[in-house]
Amino acid sequence: MILCDIGNTTTDILENGVYRKIPLTEFKPELLSGEAWYCCVNHNMSGMLEVLPNWHNIVSVIDWNKYYPTMGIDRVMVCEAIDDGVIMDAGSAITVDVMRDGVHQGGFISLGLRAAQEAYARLSPALTTSFNFEVDLTIMAKNTPDALTVGFLAPLVHKIESLGKPIYMTGGDAQIMARYFSDAIVDERLVFKGMQKLINKGLQC
Amino acid sequence: MILCDIGNTTTDILENGVYRKIPLTEFKPELLSGEAWYCCVNHNMSGMLEVLPNWHNIVSVIDWNKYYPTMGIDRVMVCEAIDDGVIMDAGSAITVDVMRDGVHQGGFISLGLRAAQEAYARLSPALTTSFNFEVDLTIMAKNTPDALTVGFLAPLVHKIESLGKPIYMTGGDAQIMARYFSDAIVDERLVFKGMQKLINKGLQC
Repeated sequence: MILCDIGNTTTDILENGVYRKIPLTEFKPELLSGEAWYCCVNHNMSGMLEVLPNWHNIVSVIDWNKYYPTMGIDRVMVCEAIDDGVIMDAGSAITVDVMRDGVHQGGFISLGLRAAQEAYARLSPALTTSFNFEVDLTIMAKNTPDALTVGFLAPLVHKIESLGKPIYMTGGDAQIMARYFSDAIVDERLVFKGMQKLINKGLQC
Repeated sequence: MILCDIGNTTTDILENGVYRKIPLTEFKPELLSGEAWYCCVNHNMSGMLEVLPNWHNIVSVIDWNKYYPTMGIDRVMVCEAIDDGVIMDAGSAITVDVMRDGVHQGGFISLGLRAAQEAYARLSPALTTSFNFEVDLTIMAKNTPDALTVGFLAPLVHKIESLGKPIYMTGGDAQIMARYFSDAIVDERLVFKGMQKLINKGLQC
């Protein structure tokens, strides 16, 4: 079985336990044979996949009573992967969700690291600087790069820590974010784990 | 004595106890007689004021050993106004500073409410929505507007509350932010208070 997580610029593919990431422009689903399940945020690609009989949209097996209707499909997948815990997906946005006994307790959406830095830069040339990821988030800052890093990260980290344990992290910036948590579990395949769990549940029905 | 807080679009003027805000385009400092002190973030206007003998730049009386060199002048002013407490200036950016016994402990810079909403909107049409300021920040969100509002405000409020009391708020969004704190003190004239304290200190020397 093939699992695909299709974004707006890249596609993550898990095929017979082998993981690869390819640019979306190189993704040719019609050339892949065998049963395939996909999780897709790209509307053009969704349209293309719908007509291929061996490609199945994971949306069709989600129990939407558990989530709110406009919740992102990749966010639903990482929640499906975890029964108990706090899940952070650190990409262009940072989504944070709480699952308890397999029930979604709600969540929130923060800006991603890049989006936050760009937003500061738009405010003023004086705030056009990269985050200093070496900064100690527990103390107040005394220079501009630290003031921006602490301003964005310290509240976010503090809030996430207040939500309880365990904390799971996925997404492109998971490794950077993990350094601020003493015992976060980084798992780059959380979307695939959620997909696999949902598919297995569907097959048992 | 006249006190002026000169921004990039408006000027706040305190003249003989009377406060007024005017567009920067209508601000004609050469027409004001008497001694005047100004705090200015607009470089063009600074150049103009430097040649007027009755206009004094508040920068000249700041003890810069207390602050870091790139710290915004209006941020220094609100710190000078308060000897003990947490000071939030909620404008295009939200600055947060801690003062203890008249000593600056450091601070941080968050995005302003408008900048944050615009940054979310840039990420995705699905995140193009206004904050819901009625939301309960203590619970996890179950719809998109709440998820963005909680995502931006809950970490910030949580962090500021951890910094101790009292909490002073100034700036255009101070009233909106104050609703999330049980006993914040909103004072729209904190910049002027800081200026006045500095001027008084200077006159005593």
